[in-house]
Amino acid sequence: MAEINYPKQVEKWGVFELSCPGKTDGNPFTDYKIAGVFKSKNERITVDGFYDGEGIYRVRFMPSFDEEYQFEINGNFSETPCSGNFMVTPPSGNNHGPVRVANTYHFAYEDGAPYYPVGTTCYVWELQSEALQKKTLETLKNGPFNKIRFCVFPKHYDYNLNEPRSYPYEGKPMDSSVLTKENFMKYVGEAPGNQWDFQRFNPEHFRHIEKCICSLLDLGIEADLIVMHPYDRWGFSKMNAECDDLYWNYVIARFASYRNVWWSLANEYDLMPQKTISDWERYAQIICNKDPYNRLRNIHNCRPFYDHSRPWITHCCIQRQDIYKCAELVAEYREQYKKPIILDEIAYEGNIQHGWGNISGKEMVRRFWEAACRGGYAGHGETYFHPEDILWWSHGGELHGDSPKRLGFLHLILSETPGLGLMPIRKGWDEIAATVEELIPVSGYYLFYYSFMRPSFRDYYFDDTNDYNVEVIDTWDMTIEDRGCFKGKFRVELPGKEYMAVRIRRVKE
Amino acid sequence: MAEINYPKQVEKWGVFELSCPGKTDGNPFTDYKIAGVFKSKNERITVDGFYDGEGIYRVRFMPSFDEEYQFEINGNFSETPCSGNFMVTPPSGNNHGPVRVANTYHFAYEDGAPYYPVGTTCYVWELQSEALQKKTLETLKNGPFNKIRFCVFPKHYDYNLNEPRSYPYEGKPMDSSVLTKENFMKYVGEAPGNQWDFQRFNPEHFRHIEKCICSLLDLGIEADLIVMHPYDRWGFSKMNAECDDLYWNYVIARFASYRNVWWSLANEYDLMPQKTISDWERYAQIICNKDPYNRLRNIHNCRPFYDHSRPWITHCCIQRQDIYKCAELVAEYREQYKKPIILDEIAYEGNIQHGWGNISGKEMVRRFWEAACRGGYAGHGETYFHPEDILWWSHGGELHGDSPKRLGFLHLILSETPGLGLMPIRKGWDEIAATVEELIPVSGYYLFYYSFMRPSFRDYYFDDTNDYNVEVIDTWDMTIEDRGCFKGKFRVELPGKEYMAVRIRRVKE
Repeated sequence: MAEINYPKQVEKWGVFELSCPGKTDGNPFTDYKIAGVFKSKNERITVDGFYDGEGIYRVRFMPSFDEEYQFEINGNFSETPCSGNFMVTPPSGNNHGPVRVANTYHFAYEDGAPYYPVGTTCYVWELQSEALQKKTLETLKNGPFNKIRFCVFPKHYDYNLNEPRSYPYEGKPMDSSVLTKENFMKYVGEAPGNQWDFQRFNPEHFRHIEKCICSLLDLGIEADLIVMHPYDRWGFSKMNAECDDLYWNYVIARFASYRNVWWSLANEYDLMPQKTISDWERYAQIICNKDPYNRLRNIHNCRPFYDHSRPWITHCCIQRQDIYKCAELVAEYREQYKKPIILDEIAYEGNIQHGWGNISGKEMVRRFWEAACRGGYAGHGETYFHPEDILWWSHGGELHGDSPKRLGFLHLILSETPGLGLMPIRKGWDEIAATVEELIPVSGYYLFYYSFMRPSFRDYYFDDTNDYNVEVIDTWDMTIEDRGCFKGKFRVELPGKEYMAVRIRRVKE
Repeated sequence: MAEINYPKQVEKWGVFELSCPGKTDGNPFTDYKIAGVFKSKNERITVDGFYDGEGIYRVRFMPSFDEEYQFEINGNFSETPCSGNFMVTPPSGNNHGPVRVANTYHFAYEDGAPYYPVGTTCYVWELQSEALQKKTLETLKNGPFNKIRFCVFPKHYDYNLNEPRSYPYEGKPMDSSVLTKENFMKYVGEAPGNQWDFQRFNPEHFRHIEKCICSLLDLGIEADLIVMHPYDRWGFSKMNAECDDLYWNYVIARFASYRNVWWSLANEYDLMPQKTISDWERYAQIICNKDPYNRLRNIHNCRPFYDHSRPWITHCCIQRQDIYKCAELVAEYREQYKKPIILDEIAYEGNIQHGWGNISGKEMVRRFWEAACRGGYAGHGETYFHPEDILWWSHGGELHGDSPKRLGFLHLILSETPGLGLMPIRKGWDEIAATVEELIPVSGYYLFYYSFMRPSFRDYYFDDTNDYNVEVIDTWDMTIEDRGCFKGKFRVELPGKEYMAVRIRRVKE
C-alpha cells in the first residue's frame, strides 16, 4: 500500500479529498482510471477520481453521515493501491447540507432548513479577470441571491467576444481579433481555426471553477452549473459523443462532491441542433450513474421545453416562451409536471437592444412575486449597457438595477412563511392568492398579491371565529404595515398603488 | 291626403323627420303601425315609424344620395295617408356620413375619410342629472374620444344604485332605498317590486337618448348603443320574447336614422342566461330587416366570445379574457375572424377594488398601442374612486386619469398613416411592427412599438436604395423626435425607456 497524506477529519456534507501520484505516460485523461470506495456504518459509495495534471490523480467524496469512514482507492493509475480511514464530524456553521426537492414543489436543505431560491445568472463570471471575479463575489456577498447559474465552457455571443481567462482543453483558440459586433453571429456554433485536443483537459480551468464553487459555498450560494450551451465559437458544443462523455465524466468526478452544485445539463438545449434527445438522455444517465449524491438536475430551454416529466429531471428550469406571460403560468406548470418550478430567464432587467434584456426593475420584481405566489420561483438577471461591455448577465461585476434589493425583500417574506414554500389557492379572480404548501387549513397563512392592479380596498373572509392579523405589504417600497386584527368579513384599505400585497395570518389562541 | 309640415330640405346622411298626428285609443305602441317609403333616383327605402306619445307618430329617414326624394306614409295609425317630397343637399361641415367597415380590418366614413376608433365607455352617462350630462359632454368635447359605448336601459351594479333620470317604460320601479353596497349583488337580474308595462314605452326616455345621440354627433362621436345588458334590477333583462321584439323594433325605428349610431346587441351577453343564442340571432335578424342603413353591429362578451364569424356581426367587440394578455392577441383575432377588432373593456384605468377597474394610465396606453400596432383598436374606460360614486365608466363627468391625452396622441399618429389603419408585420420577435394595411410594399411606412421593453438602440434594414426618415416617438411623453434620414442598414439610438415607438417612412424621390 502507498503512503499518502489525507485529512483525518472532515465535516458531514464537506469534501474529503485524496491526491495520489500516478502514471504520466500516454494520455492520463483517457488511458488510466482511478476510483474510490467509501464505506461507513450507513453508506457505501463508489466514486470516480480524475487526473489533475502534473502526475496527480484525485478522488473526492462527500460523506452524508457523521461517523467513521474507510476508503480504498483503486484503478490502473498506479501500481500501488491505497486505503485509509477518517472521521466525519457534525456539520458546523451554515452547513445545512445539499439542497433537495422536499415536497413536490419546493426545496429544503438536507437538514430540513427551508431553501427559497432567489437565483441570478452570470454565465461566465468565473472566466473573467481576477479583479472582476472579486467584484462579483463582493456583489453576491452583499446581495439577495442564493443561487447562481454559470457555465463550465466559455461563452461567445453579443457582448461576449473577449477571451476567457482559461480554456477547458489543451490547445489554441481561433483568432478572436476577426470578431466584431456585426459579424459575431456567424461564428456561433462554428469553430474555424480552433485547435483543441478534446481528450486532454486543462486542469487549471477546472481547478479554478472549483475555487469559485467553494467561494460561492462560503457565501451560502448554490452553483447551478451549466455544463453545455450553444453560445460557442470554439467547437465545445460540437464534440463527438465520445468526447462529450469524457467531458461529462470529468466534470462529475471533479465537481459532484461540492454540496452546492446543481447540474444544469444545458442552457437552451434546443439551440444545439447537433445534440439529439438521445444525447441529452445519455448525459442524464451518466450523471445518474456517476453522481452518487443525486444532486439537483435540470435542463433549460430557449423555446420548446424539454420534457420535464422525465424522471431524471428534479425540477423545471424554464425560460419564458412568451414576451408577456410566463410567471403567470406557474400554477399550470406545477399541475403539469408536479415538480418545483424555477423560471430562469424571464427577461433581464436592463436596457440593451434585445427584448430579452431590457425590462424594468419593477417588471422584474412583479414577475418574481407572480411566480412566488403561484408556488414557484423566478430567476434574476441584469443587462444594463456598460462602456466596457461588462454586463452582470454574463460577466458579473456590479449590479446597477432596481430589482435586487426587492428580491431580497421577497425572500424575507418567504422566510417568514411557516412552511417550505407557497401554494396557489383560488380566491378572487383578480388577485393572486397563496397559502402554505400542504398545510391548509392548518396554517392560517394567506398571502395576496395584486400585481399591476391598484385596488383602493379589498374584502376578505375566512371564518367567523378566528382573529386574523393583517399586514399591508408594499413589494416595491419594501414596507410592511401592521393593520391589526380582524374577524369575520372585513375590509382592508389599500393605497391604490401597483405592486401591493396583503399578508393575513391567523392569530393563535 | 293629410296636410302635414315637414322640412323641404335635408342634407345627405342627415335625418329627415315627419311627425303625424294619429290614433290614441287602445295602446298606440302595439295596436297601430306607421311606415314610410322613401324613393329617389338611386334608392328606395322602407322604414318603420313609431309612436312618440301625445297623439304623435313619427317617421325618420336618413338619405344616402343628394337628390330629390319622394315619400309616402302609410299604416293604420291614421285614416289619412300622406306623401310629399324633399331635396337632399350635399353634406356640410364635418358630415362624412356613417362609419363603415372599409377594408376587412378597418373603418372609414362613407365618404372615404378614415376613421380610427378611440372609444370610451360611460354606460349610463345619459341617465344622470342634467348637470352631470353637461359636464360629460364638455369632457368629451375636450377629449380624444370618437366613440362612446352606452346603454339604452339603466344600470344596476356596484356604484350604480341610484335611480336613472327616466325609465324606458310606463310604470314604477322597485323601492331602491333597500339597496346597499353590501346587498346590491342579490338584486342583479332580479326585479322584486317593479311594476312596468312592457308594452307601453316612455317616449321621453327615448327622446332624451336621441338628444344625446345628436349631441354626440355634433362632437363627431359615434354612439355605440348597448341595447341590452345584464346589470338590471328592473326586469328589463328578463322580458319575454314578444316584449323584447317590441323593444328592438321601437329602438330601431327611433334611432336607426342617426348616422353615428352603432348597434351593440349586448354588453356581456353571456351574463344573461335567460337569453339563448336563438334569441340573439333573432334580435340580429330584426336589426338586419329593419335597419335599412346597415349600421355597424357587434355583441360584447364577459367571458366566452359570441361567435364573431356570424355574418351579421360587422366587427369584433371583445372584452379581454385574461388579466395579463389581450391587446397582444389582436393579430390572432384578426386572423380568426377577418373583421375589425375593437377591444372594448381591457380593464379600466382607476383604483377601485375590482380587478377590471384599477390599472394604471401607463398600462392603459400600452394596451392601446399594442392593439393599434397589431391592426386593431382598444377602448378606454375609467374607474377612479369618487366621494359621490361618480365614475366615468358609468356616469361620465370628469376624467381624472393619465391615459386620455395619450390616447389622443395615438390617434394623431394613426391619422398620419397613409391608409385606413395598421397591419401587423413580422420583424423582430421583440418588437411590435406595423405597416399600412393593404399597401405593402407601396407605402414605405413602418411603425415599431417597444411596449415595456427598453432598448437603448435598435437596428433596421429595408433596402439599399431608398432613404428613410426616422422619428423616435415617446408614446407616454407624447414627443416625436425627427432623427433625419438613413439608408441601408442603420441603427437608431433610443433612450432605454418604456413605451417608445419608432416611425420610419420612406422618403419620396
